Amino acid sequence: VVDADALIERLVSDSRALPRLATLVENDDPRGLDLLDVLYPRTGQAHIVGVTGPPGSGKSTLIAALLKGLRETGRRVAVLAIDPSSPLTGGAVLGDRIRMMERHADAGVFVRSMASRGRKGGLAWATAALVHVLDAAGYPLILIETVGTGQDGTDIAALADTVVVLEAPGLGDGVQAIKSGLLEVGDIVVVNKADQPGADDALRLLRAAFALAHPADGRVVPIVATTAATGEGVAALVAAIDEHAAWLDHDGRRIHRREHAARTEILTGLRTVFDGRVDRQTGQFEHLTTIISRVASRELSPRRAVASLLDRLAGS
Amino acid sequence: VVDADALIERLVSDSRALPRLATLVENDDPRGLDLLDVLYPRTGQAHIVGVTGPPGSGKSTLIAALLKGLRETGRRVAVLAIDPSSPLTGGAVLGDRIRMMERHADAGVFVRSMASRGRKGGLAWATAALVHVLDAAGYPLILIETVGTGQDGTDIAALADTVVVLEAPGLGDGVQAIKSGLLEVGDIVVVNKADQPGADDALRLLRAAFALAHPADGRVVPIVATTAATGEGVAALVAAIDEHAAWLDHDGRRIHRREHAARTEILTGLRTVFDGRVDRQTGQFEHLTTIISRVASRELSPRRAVASLLDRLAGS
Repeated sequence: VVDADALIERLVSDSRALPRLATLVENDDPRGLDLLDVLYPRTGQAHIVGVTGPPGSGKSTLIAALLKGLRETGRRVAVLAIDPSSPLTGGAVLGDRIRMMERHADAGVFVRSMASRGRKGGLAWATAALVHVLDAAGYPLILIETVGTGQDGTDIAALADTVVVLEAPGLGDGVQAIKSGLLEVGDIVVVNKADQPGADDALRLLRAAFALAHPADGRVVPIVATTAATGEGVAALVAAIDEHAAWLDHDGRRIHRREHAARTEILTGLRTVFDGRVDRQTGQFEHLTTIISRVASRELSPRRAVASLLDRLAGS
Repeated sequence: VVDADALIERLVSDSRALPRLATLVENDDPRGLDLLDVLYPRTGQAHIVGVTGPPGSGKSTLIAALLKGLRETGRRVAVLAIDPSSPLTGGAVLGDRIRMMERHADAGVFVRSMASRGRKGGLAWATAALVHVLDAAGYPLILIETVGTGQDGTDIAALADTVVVLEAPGLGDGVQAIKSGLLEVGDIVVVNKADQPGADDALRLLRAAFALAHPADGRVVPIVATTAATGEGVAALVAAIDEHAAWLDHDGRRIHRREHAARTEILTGLRTVFDGRVDRQTGQFEHLTTIISRVASRELSPRRAVASLLDRLAGS
């Protein structure tokens, strides 16, 4: 039986232990997953910040500037960068940039890049596991970088306590950005590249849109202008993140948030684990495979199949 | 009780019936979903072709050319275009183009565009339902257009009988495209914009990569060069689709494929329906919500939660 205290002590004292555990977990190695089960009760201490935004919004530069700004407050920070699936959006850029930084980095920064390429689903499930590892290793702040679109993006954003959504001038119609649903998940909105033409218009439009929104929880989403390349506005973004963290600590908001994260993680996990096991071995999951055959042969409608499986999952 | 025969007769004879049912189903309206349950046993007749490729590969132009090529063989065709979630990739382009075509279209073509914007997950689940509607309405060929990356993209591709993956010269390193996993799901690979510089290199590289692949099922993935803008190569693509359809009709391959599609649809549905219901009403799903609370409070690890829920789902 492995002891959580000894394991955490090891993660803190041996600089090779954390990357090694992260690799085991990322590769779905049962040795890593067993250790994660031991560590899990000790997680939940970190504040998790998701940073999301479209290609071209300057996300990689902002993450680097934010890391510097957060380090200036004396806190240890871990960064988890999720490369986008598409080979065309240049997902390696952030990874490369951060690996370069890492060489010069102090012991208070840990950077991990996770490739989504070639991975068949399960990106949010794997991301959650790595976040728990970083959390257990004692990093009080964890930044997750993600592209933020599609189911994967929404799921990864749901793992964070604070979601920072990036916008930048010149990426398209600001009203469309509001419609896209990306802003809906944001706790903080950043207009990056604030020194570029159109930034004032983007800020004005976003402020007007949010002024109309009347959020149910009464919280006004702050809109922060940054120029990540020069560091302008980054201190204000750090302050906005800390304010949101403090706000979460009232009226059970953080618990509510964590339940939403747990729900997303479990539903993502159900699917990922089931898919993986079905690929590896048939004959197991008899009830489920029977239902799948009946749907494939048009005996049972997908809606009725889902309703019956949900009843089974839900039953007390 | 609604009768499937009468319903299908209505979908065929009244041109407003199909778009109306599609809207009800897309909006998750129980009236539409009930009708779909009635129709479901009559589906499974259509051959479903997924067309996927990165932005810039000329997907919209190819879909239009393919539609024309398929119509020339005399078959009725339905097109379901899924706009990408990102407001920045210009998802409206295909929709606009096809809506324009539609005005002049014959009765043998039905085009439906589904917005993914603002939709909170469940894209593949909604897509599957619309495919069943088009299938029940008697279209022997259904084209689904999708961006193809991320979990949504993989799920939507899994609904198709034949997946056509588009490449084009000049979009990046061909080897990266192979690594991305997009090609792995392709039954047919198209190098579009074959008249542009670099097309020959892309073709050579793809042929070399696939020659090394030795597919388990013994089928060699055809690589078709097209210039969608002029129609060059489109007839060869139509032939390749028909060949794949004929190949599926041997050795139980189509049934195997349909079971894979049903599995994806059910797992996507479980998640979508559960998410939706939890958002609407609490108090239901007692067992599941208890498990979520225990994970959120760190009493139970996500992996153990998932294992216990899977056992429940799987048990005979």
